Amino acid sequence: MSIVKLLQDHELEPEAAAVFADIRAVRKTDFVNNFWRALAHDPALLKRTWESIKQVMAPGTIDPLTKEMIYIAVSAAQSCEYCVRSHTAAARAKGITDQQLMELVSVVGMAAETNRLALALQVPVDEAFK
Amino acid sequence: MSIVKLLQDHELEPEAAAVFADIRAVRKTDFVNNFWRALAHDPALLKRTWESIKQVMAPGTIDPLTKEMIYIAVSAAQSCEYCVRSHTAAARAKGITDQQLMELVSVVGMAAETNRLALALQVPVDEAFK
Amino acid sequence: MSIVKLLQDHELEPEAAAVFADIRAVRKTDFVNNFWRALAHDPALLKRTWESIKQVMAPGTIDPLTKEMIYIAVSAAQSCEYCVRSHTAAARAKGITDQQLMELVSVVGMAAETNRLALALQVPVDEAFK
Amino acid sequence: MSIVKLLQDHELEPEAAAVFADIRAVRKTDFVNNFWRALAHDPALLKRTWESIKQVMAPGTIDPLTKEMIYIAVSAAQSCEYCVRSHTAAARAKGITDQQLMELVSVVGMAAETNRLALALQVPVDEAFK
Amino acid sequence: MSIVKLLQDHELEPEAAAVFADIRAVRKTDFVNNFWRALAHDPALLKRTWESIKQVMAPGTIDPLTKEMIYIAVSAAQSCEYCVRSHTAAARAKGITDQQLMELVSVVGMAAETNRLALALQVPVDEAFK
Amino acid sequence: MSIVKLLQDHELEPEAAAVFADIRAVRKTDFVNNFWRALAHDPALLKRTWESIKQVMAPGTIDPLTKEMIYIAVSAAQSCEYCVRSHTAAARAKGITDQQLMELVSVVGMAAETNRLALALQVPVDEAFK
Repeated sequence: MSIVKLLQDHELEPEAAAVFADIRAVRKTDFVNNFWRALAHDPALLKRTWESIKQVMAPGTIDPLTKEMIYIAVSAAQSCEYCVRSHTAAARAKGITDQQLMELVSVVGMAAETNRLALALQVPVDEAFK
Repeated sequence: MSIVKLLQDHELEPEAAAVFADIRAVRKTDFVNNFWRALAHDPALLKRTWESIKQVMAPGTIDPLTKEMIYIAVSAAQSCEYCVRSHTAAARAKGITDQQLMELVSVVGMAAETNRLALALQVPVDEAFK
Repeated sequence: MSIVKLLQDHELEPEAAAVFADIRAVRKTDFVNNFWRALAHDPALLKRTWESIKQVMAPGTIDPLTKEMIYIAVSAAQSCEYCVRSHTAAARAKGITDQQLMELVSVVGMAAETNRLALALQVPVDEAFK
Repeated sequence: MSIVKLLQDHELEPEAAAVFADIRAVRKTDFVNNFWRALAHDPALLKRTWESIKQVMAPGTIDPLTKEMIYIAVSAAQSCEYCVRSHTAAARAKGITDQQLMELVSVVGMAAETNRLALALQVPVDEAFK
Repeated sequence: MSIVKLLQDHELEPEAAAVFADIRAVRKTDFVNNFWRALAHDPALLKRTWESIKQVMAPGTIDPLTKEMIYIAVSAAQSCEYCVRSHTAAARAKGITDQQLMELVSVVGMAAETNRLALALQVPVDEAFK
Repeated sequence: MSIVKLLQDHELEPEAAAVFADIRAVRKTDFVNNFWRALAHDPALLKRTWESIKQVMAPGTIDPLTKEMIYIAVSAAQSCEYCVRSHTAAARAKGITDQQLMELVSVVGMAAETNRLALALQVPVDEAFK
């Protein structure tokens, strides 16, 4: 169980219901996942988070699938199961292959390792990188 | 200063010198950054890390610039200044624009925020994501 | 299952039993949660942790409910489910409302986001903040 | 140096300049710290972040000083020097005393310790906390 | 369920099967744990990770049980349940006692606490430590 | 500069001065590092932290040098420069060799990598490890 009750559609305040409607319209599916049902207790937080996500994840100078890969990388690096799983599902919906997924995972692993090597050894930043 | 002395070229053991030669050949530059000069105290670690990085960051089903973006994302999420700076330099060398960099940063920020929202609220993973 | 057996009351060494008695006296309840039952394998660790918690979480210049909120914030930021859940229960026992809980979560989320933005961009600390 | 140039006032695009004007109006000071000068390269990110911060940190069911304390706690838990320093400055401006600051730090420390104890021992969540 | 199917022995590509054979030979057991069954989707990643682990965890100037303790410490500090559990099992197989395990956990906890105290207070590194 | 002034000996309250005297006696040196000079603003925090460290880091079923290695591992995994540097200095004082230090760093790196691989792939814990 989550910390707060996951709200069902009939329990939403109007401002939250409007956000759910937009989520459904943008994603072209009736399914609204648990994350939004928890945030719905605070319509301002729900609305702000959804508007931000919509804006950030939209196609820009980085394509949407790459953005999902970046999202998964951060989520693994911050130990968030929910976010790893939900954004892997999103990446699959956007066409990521198993091979790309394993390659993404390889990069995340190498970055994690070299991060800790650099920190344990306290390697000073090269002048060339400043 | 780093935890161990940064080794200069003339201080390298032969196995480490061979790795430095390969770094220079692959990267087509004489410059070898501090990270490798710290690892050089342990030629086996140096060699293993370089061989792994070379393999992981090579073009595959994910292109090299996208891989650098994933690397930066993990490094920011794990608070490693050295890695953020060195891989941002690498991404710039591979042609990332300021606009793409800011967009990458935006995705990292949103992921970090929603990670913590999901964790603070302990949102259960939807059946659809399992 | 935890890494070590959760000790039942009749399995405690005398020094651990004394700590359990104090936990019950201070909290005015017979319930002793799993965290302490795992630590009880090492009575010195159990005693030190309980004495520290008791001292740190007592009313001081910061009130006990605010302290629980700080505790939850750290626990979400460090991805500890057990601690998020146990301290949210403690905060509820101290009267936190759903609205305050959502507001706490909003601050945690924003802090997490701006942390990663500052780290990804390597923003230098302003002179005014030093 | 940060990853991107810190923009001076005369280098801002109009949308960014408008955000800076609002920051100055809300905070009643001419000083705009480096964080915003880095974000200013992406006016949409700048605007979204500022609007969110303004909304989240405003007085609500949790008072502004408590919110700053939560912010500092997350920033220390996520190893962000910039954020620890800037929000400690903000907390001081809102009247935090040295004694409160040390008490905040004590809670952060205890939470960090018990987080890792619970994770290392893999303590299962009590039924009572679910 | 994991993000990718856990591969059974008969589903392995030849390069992955060879790694599994080596894991069984080195560990003197038929059991191959889930971690390797997930990595097996990418034989290059599987092989590289196994070869690295084998090299790093072998007896050297640090004994194998101490290495397992270091592994557990990092895994608790990075909130990885899988790794805490699998390396605690490995440490038990190498003879760690309950008392040593609790002592390890105590050190991890203290380090976590003082890490956050130092970060929250932004303690400058002493000249003597540079 | 740290968040709070680093206290000099003549600025200490009596309870803090007593702790400094004990630090000097136990460590057999007049040098008291900055960490304690920052904590000294809160004599109760100073005393509790010092008593805990003294107890945890004392010889037990794990030897003091191994404990320092565990401390360094956690500090690198949690991105705390102060703690990496101060405990590496302590490990050197206890006789760690450069070779052991590099081997420690290798284990930390591998653990960090496999942690993130396991998290990114959401590998389920094997029944044998529960």
